[in-house]
Amino acid sequence: MTTPEATLHPAARTFRVKGSRVRSLLKATQRPDFISLGGGMPAPAAFPVAELRAAFDAELAENGAAAVQYSTTEGEPALREWVAERETANGLPTDPNQVLIVSGSQQALDLIAKAFVEPGAPVLVESPTYLGALQAFSAFGPDYRVVATDDEGFRPETVAAGALDGARFMYVMPNFQNPGGRTLTEACRRDIAARARSADFWLVEDDPYGELWYRTPPPPSLRMWAPERTIRLGSLSKILAPGLRLGYVVAPPQAIDLLVRLKQGTDLQTGTLTQRAAARVMRSGLLDEHLPRIRAIYATQCAAMLEALESCMPDGVTWTRPDGGMFVWVTLPERVDANELLTSAVERGVIFAPGDGFYAIDPPANTLRLSFSNVPPERIRIGVGILSELIRAAIER
Amino acid sequence: MTTPEATLHPAARTFRVKGSRVRSLLKATQRPDFISLGGGMPAPAAFPVAELRAAFDAELAENGAAAVQYSTTEGEPALREWVAERETANGLPTDPNQVLIVSGSQQALDLIAKAFVEPGAPVLVESPTYLGALQAFSAFGPDYRVVATDDEGFRPETVAAGALDGARFMYVMPNFQNPGGRTLTEACRRDIAARARSADFWLVEDDPYGELWYRTPPPPSLRMWAPERTIRLGSLSKILAPGLRLGYVVAPPQAIDLLVRLKQGTDLQTGTLTQRAAARVMRSGLLDEHLPRIRAIYATQCAAMLEALESCMPDGVTWTRPDGGMFVWVTLPERVDANELLTSAVERGVIFAPGDGFYAIDPPANTLRLSFSNVPPERIRIGVGILSELIRAAIER
Repeated sequence: MTTPEATLHPAARTFRVKGSRVRSLLKATQRPDFISLGGGMPAPAAFPVAELRAAFDAELAENGAAAVQYSTTEGEPALREWVAERETANGLPTDPNQVLIVSGSQQALDLIAKAFVEPGAPVLVESPTYLGALQAFSAFGPDYRVVATDDEGFRPETVAAGALDGARFMYVMPNFQNPGGRTLTEACRRDIAARARSADFWLVEDDPYGELWYRTPPPPSLRMWAPERTIRLGSLSKILAPGLRLGYVVAPPQAIDLLVRLKQGTDLQTGTLTQRAAARVMRSGLLDEHLPRIRAIYATQCAAMLEALESCMPDGVTWTRPDGGMFVWVTLPERVDANELLTSAVERGVIFAPGDGFYAIDPPANTLRLSFSNVPPERIRIGVGILSELIRAAIER
Repeated sequence: MTTPEATLHPAARTFRVKGSRVRSLLKATQRPDFISLGGGMPAPAAFPVAELRAAFDAELAENGAAAVQYSTTEGEPALREWVAERETANGLPTDPNQVLIVSGSQQALDLIAKAFVEPGAPVLVESPTYLGALQAFSAFGPDYRVVATDDEGFRPETVAAGALDGARFMYVMPNFQNPGGRTLTEACRRDIAARARSADFWLVEDDPYGELWYRTPPPPSLRMWAPERTIRLGSLSKILAPGLRLGYVVAPPQAIDLLVRLKQGTDLQTGTLTQRAAARVMRSGLLDEHLPRIRAIYATQCAAMLEALESCMPDGVTWTRPDGGMFVWVTLPERVDANELLTSAVERGVIFAPGDGFYAIDPPANTLRLSFSNVPPERIRIGVGILSELIRAAIER
């Protein structure tokens, strides 16, 4: 008997959700001979493996079955308390009932999309913006309205008259943005908050990289200026380890309640053991000594990349000079296509992220994102050198 | 300065998603003085804590940073291979590329809803059916069509003419169903598969309880009879531990590819460390000795509940007699309202799940689900005794 074929009948929304080219290249990036300037993988040297090992062991030894039993959708009390204390210490008194633990901050983007986005709903995004946010939101059919960004931050004057009105929310990554690398000034944050209040939209503040500053901390959280309408997302992926899949949401209780209800149907809850082990590590005071180590790793690798770009890129190529985070954003001469460049780069053993995936509308072909986060300086120089050769050849072709 | 209030503007879909009353009572169920016949919490004695502790420790000791780094959306190879081998051993040759690891099988329900459900799309469900599936599907606006169920299984003759045509899928929990406790006969499985082929719809086979049989294993998986159109969901929550949040999908590669693309935007991937530790435990051969222990626990507790029901329930109350799993389904006299009963039961320190949440349409008021999975026999008897008193009083009122 032969098995018949079956045709898939996917929902219309699935055609709006693009796969991540970076993620689909992840298998290649795991080949040790490849130089991956593609994914934003944290440096393994930045993971406190010994402390994590001790925390998982202590949790299972002391609490046994309770550590792997079902728990509440809101999250483990110890981790919610740590988040609330940290937000409070950063300047805005926060209660644990304003905190929801999520399975990585990507999940928060999905829950927010489920909660607020529906076909035709206006959503404000930067241009470029984080690819993963577009993946999460696009499934639900928003009407994207883009706000131009420069080195100082948003340029709200570029928004069409009335475009802010009726927006469900504005999605903002204020610190060391993925992919652009830029950080919003305090004045810009205040301006965005004031506009949110006057036009009555919410703010989704996505802040996975805020702790990864090289010289000076970024300005206070966007949430400071409009706490009643800000849904702030944090992540343990960059300060602890990404493979734990832990993030959090800080928001007014009414928004937390809605997101909790949606999370029930999405994955019931985030893993009990992982939350408890992470709370142990965080409460041990590790971050005080750990964060300076991480910052130094990324500052060194960023400097290596900026030097390499400076020394070998041909005229007509420009790039950002971030003061934190994991990414440099490169603009090529208009005639050079980043996706074609990627094809030839992969043949030479180098990977990067083409820029077009980071635009909600009208993607240009000539931008790309380079990550230096998981590549030692000498390999950064080799990778950038190869890219420079290929770009030079493309310009001359 | 006083902070202004902000109004939430949720998407229309959020009003279709009901919270789980059981989950919102979870905090109460964690009070040790409560007798919880509500949530389907596995018995802590069924968790192999020592083996998990050893596995987490070995994984971090041997693989260090790699164990907590980002990984692929599809899942860790070792765990995908274990799933494929198990499916193969159960009778249907399966390749790891037909497997997707998910953050608990609830996440698979969400991904399937995202992939296939859209407003007005016909979806076939049992009546009653799993509350968590309704939560996941309802967010996307299906046109539910229900199929009646009896002790033998589905009764497809109860479906209106033509209702099968154009269905996106039929959602089925074949073994020890939550909430009804019943298992489909092999003849019924073959019949469903044949109908799926002739009317060209897919099958979503949700099987979290299949291993929890008391006397004899259930018939072969539904996937056996229509592998080209079955998306089979498995869970480690009941055979290992639920707080790990690990489940899996087995399906044709075209369906896996679609679900992987959607999972990228949903949570990027399931936790790396947890997957690797679970794969270690599974590959150690633990299940061979562990599953008989678990089955004995639930068989004993189920017998205690059935005896208690038999000895004290008033006339007019009926219930299922499951041969595996965690639940007994109770039908009260028509004039007794299960939600009112719950209110008085909570006052007496007993919790159960009212049945209305388990119906896609036309919920009756007089059904409820009792779980015996996490309650010792003597407390089951006390809890059922209290419920009997309250039901007797409600009948006589």
